[in-house]
Amino acid sequence: MSDAYARLKTRFARIATLGEAGAMLHWDASAMMPPGGGAARGEQLAVLAGLGHELLTAPAVAEDLAAAAATGDWDQANLRLMRRAHLRATALPTSLVEATARANAACEKVWRQAKAAADFAMVRPALEEVVALQREAAQALSGVLGLAPYDSLMDGYQPGIGAADVEPVFAAYEAFLAEALPRAEAIQAARGAPLPLPGPFPVAVQQALCRSLSERVGLDYGHARLDESLHPFCGGTPTDVRITTFYAEADVGKALLGVLHETGHALYERGLPGAWARQPVGEAAGMAAHESQSLIVEMQACRSDAFLGFLGGELHRAFGGDPAPYETANLARLWRRVGRSFIRVDADELTYPAHVILRFRLERALIGGELSVADLPGAWAEGFRRLLGIAPPNDAEGCLQDIHWHDGAFGYFPSYTLGAMAAAQLMKAARAAVPGLEAAMGQGDMAPLTGWLARHVHAQGSRLGFQDLLRQATGKPLDPADFMDHLRHRYL
Amino acid sequence: MSDAYARLKTRFARIATLGEAGAMLHWDASAMMPPGGGAARGEQLAVLAGLGHELLTAPAVAEDLAAAAATGDWDQANLRLMRRAHLRATALPTSLVEATARANAACEKVWRQAKAAADFAMVRPALEEVVALQREAAQALSGVLGLAPYDSLMDGYQPGIGAADVEPVFAAYEAFLAEALPRAEAIQAARGAPLPLPGPFPVAVQQALCRSLSERVGLDYGHARLDESLHPFCGGTPTDVRITTFYAEADVGKALLGVLHETGHALYERGLPGAWARQPVGEAAGMAAHESQSLIVEMQACRSDAFLGFLGGELHRAFGGDPAPYETANLARLWRRVGRSFIRVDADELTYPAHVILRFRLERALIGGELSVADLPGAWAEGFRRLLGIAPPNDAEGCLQDIHWHDGAFGYFPSYTLGAMAAAQLMKAARAAVPGLEAAMGQGDMAPLTGWLARHVHAQGSRLGFQDLLRQATGKPLDPADFMDHLRHRYL
Repeated sequence: MSDAYARLKTRFARIATLGEAGAMLHWDASAMMPPGGGAARGEQLAVLAGLGHELLTAPAVAEDLAAAAATGDWDQANLRLMRRAHLRATALPTSLVEATARANAACEKVWRQAKAAADFAMVRPALEEVVALQREAAQALSGVLGLAPYDSLMDGYQPGIGAADVEPVFAAYEAFLAEALPRAEAIQAARGAPLPLPGPFPVAVQQALCRSLSERVGLDYGHARLDESLHPFCGGTPTDVRITTFYAEADVGKALLGVLHETGHALYERGLPGAWARQPVGEAAGMAAHESQSLIVEMQACRSDAFLGFLGGELHRAFGGDPAPYETANLARLWRRVGRSFIRVDADELTYPAHVILRFRLERALIGGELSVADLPGAWAEGFRRLLGIAPPNDAEGCLQDIHWHDGAFGYFPSYTLGAMAAAQLMKAARAAVPGLEAAMGQGDMAPLTGWLARHVHAQGSRLGFQDLLRQATGKPLDPADFMDHLRHRYL
Repeated sequence: MSDAYARLKTRFARIATLGEAGAMLHWDASAMMPPGGGAARGEQLAVLAGLGHELLTAPAVAEDLAAAAATGDWDQANLRLMRRAHLRATALPTSLVEATARANAACEKVWRQAKAAADFAMVRPALEEVVALQREAAQALSGVLGLAPYDSLMDGYQPGIGAADVEPVFAAYEAFLAEALPRAEAIQAARGAPLPLPGPFPVAVQQALCRSLSERVGLDYGHARLDESLHPFCGGTPTDVRITTFYAEADVGKALLGVLHETGHALYERGLPGAWARQPVGEAAGMAAHESQSLIVEMQACRSDAFLGFLGGELHRAFGGDPAPYETANLARLWRRVGRSFIRVDADELTYPAHVILRFRLERALIGGELSVADLPGAWAEGFRRLLGIAPPNDAEGCLQDIHWHDGAFGYFPSYTLGAMAAAQLMKAARAAVPGLEAAMGQGDMAPLTGWLARHVHAQGSRLGFQDLLRQATGKPLDPADFMDHLRHRYL
């Protein structure tokens, strides 16, 4: 290990530690902070982001990167990722980084009110500021990375994946959906409506159940917390993961499946290689990879017939009453119900990609300058109608529903569907590789699956790119056919 | 305003914002963090402290301080405080600052176990490391500030106050106590035992009561939170204050009076001059000043006959049962009970200074090198016996009871008693200045008192030193006679 590389490792560890502080403050802002703390929190996050940026872009880094040498797979990958991070960061002046953090925080705050009031005009000026800064960043990155402006933002979430990778996959899915959705709806209609679960479900009981089931799936609460926030997420750091959910007395499924989803994210963070903690190569392999881990737990495993059989018993034990609604077939009909709806986070796995395809096209146009923020509500309605044949009755159920754009995350949405596809591909490979995986899930034992994931995904950190990670784990790069096969098998 | 001073203001705002991030993470570590997050949190706090230190000690600061000019009381005081902060910080190398943060976090963690096990040997090596680093810092500061090593640590908590200010006051108090304590005990014994409050007190009811009473005293939960931690404290930032307490089902008084104490701290933070936020002059005037604000609320106001009359009604409404124990005279006997006991935080206001005097003498000897950490338990027992005539049965009730030393806070303890004395002095002045203050407290209305404090203390920030702040508010510098008068009136 060269001296230059050793210095870089020290510096990157410091930058990552600052990032950890920011992650904790971000979690706090969503889960704990009183409303009056918002303005100061925006400043705190901006200063942390600015200092991290300064550390990453200091002249000494360029000198050390020029001189650094590393041997071995992991160190070589680490050095490569350091160069990439430096290249991305030096493309952006500190003033832009701080202004972006500030604008994002301000917009997110207004968005919460605008969403509650279903009033897009309320957030429009703040969102225009966010988009303007994102476009500025995309232009600056584009020149340095040799990518199209929007691709340079995508690359920030899932390295190495651009619009050209996504477009054909999304086009194929759009065609598949046009045929599959009416068929799935017809099959579902012929089957009749499921029995509703007999609520209400007291929040305290839901909390305890969510906690115990996430523990059962593998989350260690010596290194984690479960709290509440408006928009559920997984935050924190690998040794102190913070997952959140949102409880409604009338609906136990939403919080429960949401917690299982976030548990998938949390297991990834917990399973990252500790020996490479705070180094670029020790981080998760990107947002699509991350989403594959939440969806393989929530969608592939927890909504499987096998696990639903176990889960139904747990639910009935917790809430009592008539056992019939908790039978596997009924839970499957309830929680694998497909349909055309407005809210992405409530969408089923068949239509979910349509929500993502819409956002991908709109955000690409916003960054490209072909669409203005003012025209967003109209473009949303038009695109939604084309994909799913319906249009939202108001903006709260349309372009105000997601936090992402209002928090400055452009280029992130495709990761959801790339992750769903990767999850199906990984599940198929895990089933083939691990005997007894299905039977174990039927006993509520997720260890055979999560053990395989820990070895083939979690412990790999960012050593491999998204495609190579899939190649190593499944024998091939991303192949949407496995996802469509899964959907055909489950819904058609 | 000179350019140099303007640059300094920007820089100090950035440093203060980093400090805010650290304050939030410190709160989280005490109130929220799972145990497995401790190691990473120590690193996070160390990096934040180190970066803040680098910003404060950068060569540009010395240049700007040499060139800076300011006009007007506030800016002049601000510039003076910047010079002082810079002087203190440049005395310490970054490596020492980071090592200290790391050692403090590590020791605090071990201390929690050592205290639970009443095993001083367990924490001794970590505490020796903490003390060694504190001595190193004290030596370095001493040379620069022209103060004795221990005084240079005291100055970090209450600027301008040293051992020479404290020694005569503490000697006078020791003499007063030797005579007053046996008399107070005799009077109390003659009066007979108070009726106990009929518990248990469900924690959820205590939580709601603590919150509503702290609101009543003036805390705005749009800018605050109330949570639980082992060692109650007030943390966070002026627009997002975090107070904590510790609930026991058997004892409502402990949590309740603790929350009122922290509310006094919180009101000070909330009332700091917003126009000077994140500038040195916008901060609280020191730890003794801070303690005066918690104690004037908890000890002077909330334990007054007037307020106890109101509080008894609230308590009876919340918990029901026999009203007799909630009568003013009985609450006064319960919550103004004096006696020789081992635990500082449970001590009454008459004996509390003895706990502080002991710690002042011991920590001064530890920093001076006349006392070794290994000899601490023995010296504690000997000192305690001299002051209060008893010695603790184990170290958990002796030198392991407080977090302070184990978290690297040396020179802080005198602030408690300076604050208690200042609180009595301020209360006397407020009573004289505000007609109807007493009657309002009897109605649970603290606004006349807190309004006077807001103007004369909170809104002053650090513009005045501790002694000038008292002069301006009460017409004289710290005068322990008001505290002794208060104690004579209440107990003799």
